[in-house]
Amino acid sequence: MDDMHSQGGSLLIERVMVGGRLQDIFIDEAGTIASVGEGIARTCRGEADACIDGDGDLALPGLVNTHTHAAMTLLRGYADDMPLQEWLTQKIWPLEAHLTGEEVYWGTKLACLEMIRSGTVAFNDMYFFMEDAAKAVDEMGLCAVLSYGFIDLFSDEKREAECRATERVVSSIQAMQNPRIRAAVGPHAVYTVSQEGLRWLSGFAGEKKIGIHVHLSETEKEVQDAVSQWKKRPVTILDECGILTPRTVAAHCCWLDNDECRLLAQRGVHVSHNPASNMKLATGRAMPYHWLKEAGASVTLGTDGCASNNNLDLFEEMKTAALLQKYAWNSQTLLPAEEALSMATSAGSQALGFGRGVIAPGEPAHLVLVDSRAVCNTPLHHISSNLVYSCSGSAVKTTICQGKVLMKDRVVPEEEEILKGASRAAAALVKRAAENTK
Amino acid sequence: MDDMHSQGGSLLIERVMVGGRLQDIFIDEAGTIASVGEGIARTCRGEADACIDGDGDLALPGLVNTHTHAAMTLLRGYADDMPLQEWLTQKIWPLEAHLTGEEVYWGTKLACLEMIRSGTVAFNDMYFFMEDAAKAVDEMGLCAVLSYGFIDLFSDEKREAECRATERVVSSIQAMQNPRIRAAVGPHAVYTVSQEGLRWLSGFAGEKKIGIHVHLSETEKEVQDAVSQWKKRPVTILDECGILTPRTVAAHCCWLDNDECRLLAQRGVHVSHNPASNMKLATGRAMPYHWLKEAGASVTLGTDGCASNNNLDLFEEMKTAALLQKYAWNSQTLLPAEEALSMATSAGSQALGFGRGVIAPGEPAHLVLVDSRAVCNTPLHHISSNLVYSCSGSAVKTTICQGKVLMKDRVVPEEEEILKGASRAAAALVKRAAENTK
Repeated sequence: MDDMHSQGGSLLIERVMVGGRLQDIFIDEAGTIASVGEGIARTCRGEADACIDGDGDLALPGLVNTHTHAAMTLLRGYADDMPLQEWLTQKIWPLEAHLTGEEVYWGTKLACLEMIRSGTVAFNDMYFFMEDAAKAVDEMGLCAVLSYGFIDLFSDEKREAECRATERVVSSIQAMQNPRIRAAVGPHAVYTVSQEGLRWLSGFAGEKKIGIHVHLSETEKEVQDAVSQWKKRPVTILDECGILTPRTVAAHCCWLDNDECRLLAQRGVHVSHNPASNMKLATGRAMPYHWLKEAGASVTLGTDGCASNNNLDLFEEMKTAALLQKYAWNSQTLLPAEEALSMATSAGSQALGFGRGVIAPGEPAHLVLVDSRAVCNTPLHHISSNLVYSCSGSAVKTTICQGKVLMKDRVVPEEEEILKGASRAAAALVKRAAENTK
Repeated sequence: MDDMHSQGGSLLIERVMVGGRLQDIFIDEAGTIASVGEGIARTCRGEADACIDGDGDLALPGLVNTHTHAAMTLLRGYADDMPLQEWLTQKIWPLEAHLTGEEVYWGTKLACLEMIRSGTVAFNDMYFFMEDAAKAVDEMGLCAVLSYGFIDLFSDEKREAECRATERVVSSIQAMQNPRIRAAVGPHAVYTVSQEGLRWLSGFAGEKKIGIHVHLSETEKEVQDAVSQWKKRPVTILDECGILTPRTVAAHCCWLDNDECRLLAQRGVHVSHNPASNMKLATGRAMPYHWLKEAGASVTLGTDGCASNNNLDLFEEMKTAALLQKYAWNSQTLLPAEEALSMATSAGSQALGFGRGVIAPGEPAHLVLVDSRAVCNTPLHHISSNLVYSCSGSAVKTTICQGKVLMKDRVVPEEEEILKGASRAAAALVKRAAENTK
């Protein structure tokens, strides 16, 4: 079969490195890995609807980005290197205030394109106009958990409106009945959501059995303000409001203390480490990975939005995580390559409920093939070391999500149209915002 | 003319973005930029021996890597995530002890290939078997300053041998009479070179009017040991021995105090910032960029060797530098994108003496063209922000050094052969080392 991108049937991937050995992978019509083994191509070739010659490339589980605001790709490079409050109040928020659903659609399309090109198959997104984001994800073929960013600013009236908005988004995403796309609730943070709001979200998420996506202890100010206003640290507030569950992804977590790490582990919360964003915005402290690991917590990896990163390349993020942990906690051995790779694959996949994030029979076929002959893989002493410390997402040749080939040999269908549409949307947004602030 | 890579005459680059405007660049036979301007293609087209359609891509001065051990690409991923002393004594040094000139040649070829592919046109290298490194650089078409790593371990006998080795390397590189390749001296560091050795190197470099490449105050231990052994900090030792000159590049400089930053500025020393290596090896402190900037010092950018990075992508390094400075010194505004870009281009070029590192008539034509339609450049609100925070070296389409096209549309001649040769060399090295330690 020639057109990989439109293939719907079974798929045979021949001769790829899995677990250090040259193996074949057979994926059934439902997009599930049916078998993995040396030489299975001989028996499977007859029944495969499509074939990929892996050519000795490195197969790994698709990467999972557990904290994004995908449509913010439109703001990539719009404003940087400014003091945080000025950056937010004079640049980011004024522009976001003019966003339309159409623009969120194009920003999310661009984000999906970027993720596919850098080997990411699933992401956890919090933003606005999430029906438009869902349409983009549906078209692009990725997996995503989508939440409406709930911000009530401690107003009863606004809280009611945010509850209704959350209900609408969840209901409209569930109505799509796309198994790749799930709804979650998105309490923004303790400093933007009332405790009544948090309790309602916890109850609603429990009732609907859906995920929770929240920002937690990103800055020291967030912790200090919570303590001075409510005499409680953010973790305690979220816990008392029922937000800390095994369905919860908590982003950033820079300013956790050791007890809080243990509590998150006990509650089964998944932490999303966002090292590039934390460094760029000078949070002053790195997520305490050693305490979280010691406590047995689930730690995953995310890029955050494009305004504070400014890309969505999880390969780059794995390296930044491994470097930042070593630097910040003064240890040459903290967060070795293998663990960074697990954060970005198996831990992320389990956090979002898209499988175990391993290449094994019965698992959903979320896979990427990385060029084993790229400069970044030459020489190839240790695969995980090269993947984490040497390669960027540009070494990914092929990206497969639920058995469907989204990129083959670095070609993504409709790439040109997406780049043009997103460029136009970004220009229109900036123009409209400028006109309205004249 | 069809074969760009072998072109030797004049070159016209049409329609590239320079300084925010679409311009043409005409390069003469000698590899010097003859003119830059809007619409100059009309008059130059007739006399150009070759043409490149820039297609609206972003032209920037070629990047300059001011601290490398290029042949260490062969050790990429060989050992990581280990305590520093164990890593050096059990892994890196034993392998290096078995290196041959042939392997340094292949490692340097691989490094040059990687640099060309990520937009670097010149580098400052310190290692062993530098005649073999020079041969590789000569063939690959880059600019380089090459120094033999001088290590006498405070032994008179070894010092004599190192002086003779330095003389031989300098003389053999100068005998090549290749204007792209210069010799320098390479005093490794205050903890490996006697003060007699440092003084000799300073005198020899002054007499030959060549550069000096040294490691300086990389770790706190280096500073503490110097103080306890000689009652002087490393900067004072180097200064007293005449090592701090305007021809000097000092790598790392993590543990400088404010007075030392001022002294380096006064002496005209060029500092090489190596953020990825410093983070990976947990140096505990980032180079104090704010003090160096305040003092007016020249600050450039380097990747260090591949064992402690593990790649040579200066785009990635610009981002790491901009992020680390913000994080380490708690400032959202420190090292903005424009300054990171200058570090990697004009400051580096001036440090190594390969021109001002700008795109202007009379300057050597060291240029790269970056894909303006890549995802990392979509949208294109601010060019320098995208280059530093969003792009990796994979966005470079074309690399030109001294007017010669080394990569066109991501194709480098003989790439396959270099990857194979380097892989073979790395495997042979590891095998030989293993056999000899049995």
